[in-house]
Order: sequence, then structure tokens, then C-alpha cells
Amino acid sequence: MTRKHNFSAGPAALPEAVLARAAEEMLDWHGKGLSIMEMSHRSPEFVSVAEAAEQDLRDLMDIPANYKVLFLQGGATSQFGMVPMNLLRGAGTADYIDTGIWSAKAMQEASRYTRVGLVASTQGENYTRVPAQAELTLNPEAAYVHYTSNETIGGLEFDYVPETGEVPLVVDMSSDILARPIDVSRYGLIYAGAQKNIGPAGLTVVIVREELLGNTLPGTPTMFDYKVHADADSMNNTPPTFAWYMTGLVFKWLKEQGGVEGIARLNERKASSLYAAIDASDFYANPIAPANRSIMNVPFTLADSALDKLFLERAEQAGLLNLKGHRSVGGMRASIYNAVSQDSVDALIAFMQEFERTAG
Amino acid sequence: MTRKHNFSAGPAALPEAVLARAAEEMLDWHGKGLSIMEMSHRSPEFVSVAEAAEQDLRDLMDIPANYKVLFLQGGATSQFGMVPMNLLRGAGTADYIDTGIWSAKAMQEASRYTRVGLVASTQGENYTRVPAQAELTLNPEAAYVHYTSNETIGGLEFDYVPETGEVPLVVDMSSDILARPIDVSRYGLIYAGAQKNIGPAGLTVVIVREELLGNTLPGTPTMFDYKVHADADSMNNTPPTFAWYMTGLVFKWLKEQGGVEGIARLNERKASSLYAAIDASDFYANPIAPANRSIMNVPFTLADSALDKLFLERAEQAGLLNLKGHRSVGGMRASIYNAVSQDSVDALIAFMQEFERTAG
Repeated sequence: MTRKHNFSAGPAALPEAVLARAAEEMLDWHGKGLSIMEMSHRSPEFVSVAEAAEQDLRDLMDIPANYKVLFLQGGATSQFGMVPMNLLRGAGTADYIDTGIWSAKAMQEASRYTRVGLVASTQGENYTRVPAQAELTLNPEAAYVHYTSNETIGGLEFDYVPETGEVPLVVDMSSDILARPIDVSRYGLIYAGAQKNIGPAGLTVVIVREELLGNTLPGTPTMFDYKVHADADSMNNTPPTFAWYMTGLVFKWLKEQGGVEGIARLNERKASSLYAAIDASDFYANPIAPANRSIMNVPFTLADSALDKLFLERAEQAGLLNLKGHRSVGGMRASIYNAVSQDSVDALIAFMQEFERTAG
Repeated sequence: MTRKHNFSAGPAALPEAVLARAAEEMLDWHGKGLSIMEMSHRSPEFVSVAEAAEQDLRDLMDIPANYKVLFLQGGATSQFGMVPMNLLRGAGTADYIDTGIWSAKAMQEASRYTRVGLVASTQGENYTRVPAQAELTLNPEAAYVHYTSNETIGGLEFDYVPETGEVPLVVDMSSDILARPIDVSRYGLIYAGAQKNIGPAGLTVVIVREELLGNTLPGTPTMFDYKVHADADSMNNTPPTFAWYMTGLVFKWLKEQGGVEGIARLNERKASSLYAAIDASDFYANPIAPANRSIMNVPFTLADSALDKLFLERAEQAGLLNLKGHRSVGGMRASIYNAVSQDSVDALIAFMQEFERTAG
């Protein structure tokens, strides 16, 4: 068995130690004679796993006590609908910041339920930067302000937390949650699909200030009501138990890496070494304003796109997988989430330099 | 490692061979150098896994070509809302057959969207039998007729498929899908949470006649629209890839057992041996009308409920797990899904006889 360097944008690389532990426990969890996957979600064994995962996430993110942590299904795409259905609370409009494909998708779904206020957009600049605080034309009557802290496809990340006064701030943090410390109390609601920095696909984490719950739009499906899940400790119905368990293992692993502070140092180093390699070359380029470059998703182009195919072929031969850019933007993209090591990034940089030398 | 006898009602026992295969492939799927869990859902590797799972299910259930097979999230509980939101198609009422806790939950959610016609109920008889065809007061104007083919908690199963004329028949088959052959063409829509007979929790299979799609209620979340998922081959957003993969392994295992016909013979034998042991004793009892006894979930009571605790303690010592009945009915329940072997059932019967002899 040889593990390769995996730069997938999501579902993405998981810590090898977590996968090894899951494999080891697959047929017999802690000597109980069955898999964690084969246990009732209401068994004391699984409940202990579930509670530990929540507590570890609370520790890692320093989540205040007046926030609920939910383990849901349906991905961020379900959140695009759940957010307006739960948080409009009688208001006639919600504010959205447009920074690329994912924020646009969130807006589109919200516009089915309310008037969407476009607070700011950098579409005219091809999404090469995020709008500055001074550019946000916020509406104090808005039910909430929504933004996407990291655009997975564009490789664009907010370098600040928007200040929205009394209006709750909602963030799609799918691709940079747990990448570095944040102040949860600045947010009304944080959501994240698990399949980038948290665990396997099929789980969505929602962190929400309790006072925002309990006021859904008429016709909201019960399963789309945050309060139903909050009141049932995310066990209103059978949760995705294995994904939840894996997530718990990832949280433990993250604590071993020094928590979010520790992983942030590694992430900054990975990202800065890769951007430095791109910037040092005329052969590779990244279009994003340096202050807004994502530390998780690094898109880059080759000076001659006719070489893209060869680059990907040789990369794969060199054990560097899933570097193809999203179909909507082309070029390359290296996703370097928490579980991607500096070794993998170093191997990529060495390969890029070798490729430029021999094929460029 | 000792694998125990697992009678969990769900999440439930999985075939040991499937778990062993998943453990083996966990760090390195088919020599690719990464886990199936770490791959993009749009990678050729995962798409091949996804397509094979669908084809194997089509083979196993002989699903006609005009039916779509969807791999969704959210469990049967989400289906309780999705069914009316998608299938009302302008009608003012939908018919429901009430046979216990799960059908009642489906009705309750539907009643938020439409008038619910109660076609028949055996609540007055404590749900000890299902209503006969002649008892169904069907409304030809109903958008559909919904029933629960197997009540997991009550241990009650339909021994016939309701005849509903031109009105589409919708079934919650969560706990007896793939337990024996059915004629899919009799149904407009079949749904099933995976965590009993299909795979890990977090995946829901929906089999739906294509002509019923594309006519959702206003305000239906995009993620609740079957047609969105059908048009995207269940990849409108990131699906629960690991659960889908496991499901595919279960389907391959099922084919090795002789398909649904083969497993049905084993299931009938398991169930009849266990019911025979219950009926042969005055110490154990099952209240369900013999024709409607579930072949998947076998609830039983002890003549003296003061012995329940001791029964469960000794059972656990004997390696027989998860026999406690649902909190709403008490007593015991042995769930004997496809992955539970005759050996496990034989061990349970032997234990029950020994317990009756020594403690009864």
C-alpha cells in the first residue's frame, strides 16, 4: 500500500491516522463485538461518541454556551435553503455578499424565499478579491448578512470578518472551518459541509446562536427546522452515525496537532510555500489579490494551457492526485486542507519546478 | 476480535464480509493510493462505484427502466415531507394507511401540506394486524396512497400490496426493502432509509416512476425536489460517498446470497424458526396476527416483565446484543435483517430456551 498525495477539493484527504483507526475498529469497536456503524444511534456507546465529538468541536473552536452545535445531513446546499427558512423571522429581505460560485448558489436559493439584497459583489473583477468592509452597503432591516468565507472554486478567502452591527452574520465556512482560529461570537450561524476539513461527505455541521431558533417560515419541512434538531441533540431521526464517528476522530487528531492554533501555523506555512513557488515563476500564475488568497484552495494556471494535460499526467505518475481545476475555471487547483501535509505540498512544489524545467 | 450476535433495529448489523472489505480498502482503494472517502464524487473511480451500486440494485429488484433510482440524504423522515411536496401535483388530498408509529409520523408531516385521508387504521386493535384490502376506503381523487410495508417498532408487515387503481402507491419500505421479491411496477414511489437492509445510516434510497416528477409545491427547497436529484444522477451536490460505496458492497454481497430470492428463503427460515420458538412457549409471546408478523422485526414479551432486565443482562453475557424492545412498547425485539444469520437466530433461540428453563 502506498498512500499518494491527495489534493482533492472535496471529498478530500483525511488524516491517515484517522483512516487507520477506522479500519482497525471497523469490525469490532472497542471490543464490543460490532462496528460503530452497526449500533443504534441511541445506544450508550454511540451517544458517547457523538457527545465527545461535539465537546471536542466546542473545545477546538471555543464555542460559547449559548450556541447549539448540530450534526445534520444534506450538505451546504441544504443550508442554502435552511438558512432563509429559519432565519428570516418575518423580515422581508436578507443581505448577501457575492464572491463567487458558492455565494451565488446560496443567494439563488434564498431568492426563492425572500428579497435578496446584494451587499457587494466582485464579479466585475472576476472574483479576484473580496469586497472590503467599506464597500458593503448593508441594510439594517435585513434578517441576516450571508457570506462565504472561502470560495473553494475561486480560491478566494475573506481576510476579515464583516462587521454587521445588530444584524446576525451567517457564514458558509465549508472549506475553511477549523483552518484557523475564529471568534464564534461574531456569528449568528456558521455552517459547513464536512467533506473538506471535518470528515466524510454526508455530514453538515451547524453552529447557531440559540436565540435565532424557533421561527421558521410556514411550510418549512420538519427536517429543515434547526430547532427540531437542536431540541433532539441532532437525533430527531437517525443521524449519519459513521460520518459523525469519523468526524470525532478527526477532532481528536486535530487536538493532537495543537488544536486550531497548531494547524493554522501548519496551514499558513503550506500555503505560503506554495504561493511563493507560484509567484517565483513566470510559468505558473494565481490571479487572486494576495491578501485574499485562500490558504485551503490554491488555483493556478500554466503559462501555456496546452501543457495542462501533460502536467496532470506527469503529476499523477509522480503520485500527485486531483490537481485538475474546477471545470468552470480550468487550469489547476491544489486543495491543501488540514489533512494535507507539508510533505505533500513540498512534493507538489518540487514537481512543479521539475515540470517547468523539463516541459516549460 | 469476536463478532457478537447483533439484533439492533437500526442502524443494524452489516454483513461481516462487507465490513472486512471496507476495512481492507480504507486507506487504499483498489491501489489508487487513497480512500474511497477521499475521492471527489465526480472522479471516474467514484462514479464507477456509484453506477455499479445503482445497476446492482436495479438487477436485484428488477426495477423497470421508467423508474429513477435516487441516492439521497435525510432518512425516511425527510421523505415524510418530500413525498407530499413532490407528489401532490395539485391534488387537495392524499390517502394514508395507519399501521403504527412510522405510518403515523408520515401522516403527521403530510398533514402540514395537504388534507390527509385516513384510509384505514388498526390502532383500535393496538396495531396487531394490518387492514385488509376490503377495509381500505380509498379516495380516487387522492394524489397518492401511502403505507408502511413493515412497522419496525410494532413488528407488523403487510402480507399483500394494496390495490389502488389509478392512484399511485407510495411505500415506506425502510425496514423490509430487499427482504423478499416485490413487483416495483406496482408502486409509484418506494423509499427506504439505508440503515436496516441497505447499508450505513445517512443514505436514503428512492425508487420513483419518472412521470411523477417535476411538479413540486411552491416553496419546496431545491434539495427536496426529486427531479433535481434525478436530473443530476443524485449528484446535485456532494452525496454521502462512503455510505453509497458501502451500499454497493452490500448489493454485491446480496447477489452472492442468491439475490433477493435467495435471501428471502433465508429470511423466511430465520423468522419462522424464531416465531415457532416463541409460540412453542408459554413464557414468550408475540401479539401480532400470524399473517402479518414481520420477517424482519420480531418483538416478544416475557410472561413476567420483572425478568426483562435479567434477560437482557444474560443475553448480553451470551453475546446476544440489542434485544431491548423499543421504549414505546417495552419487552424485547429481535431485528433479523438480511445481514443477521441463521446462526445468530439459532443462538438466540437456544438462549431463550435456556433462560426459560433457568429463570422462568
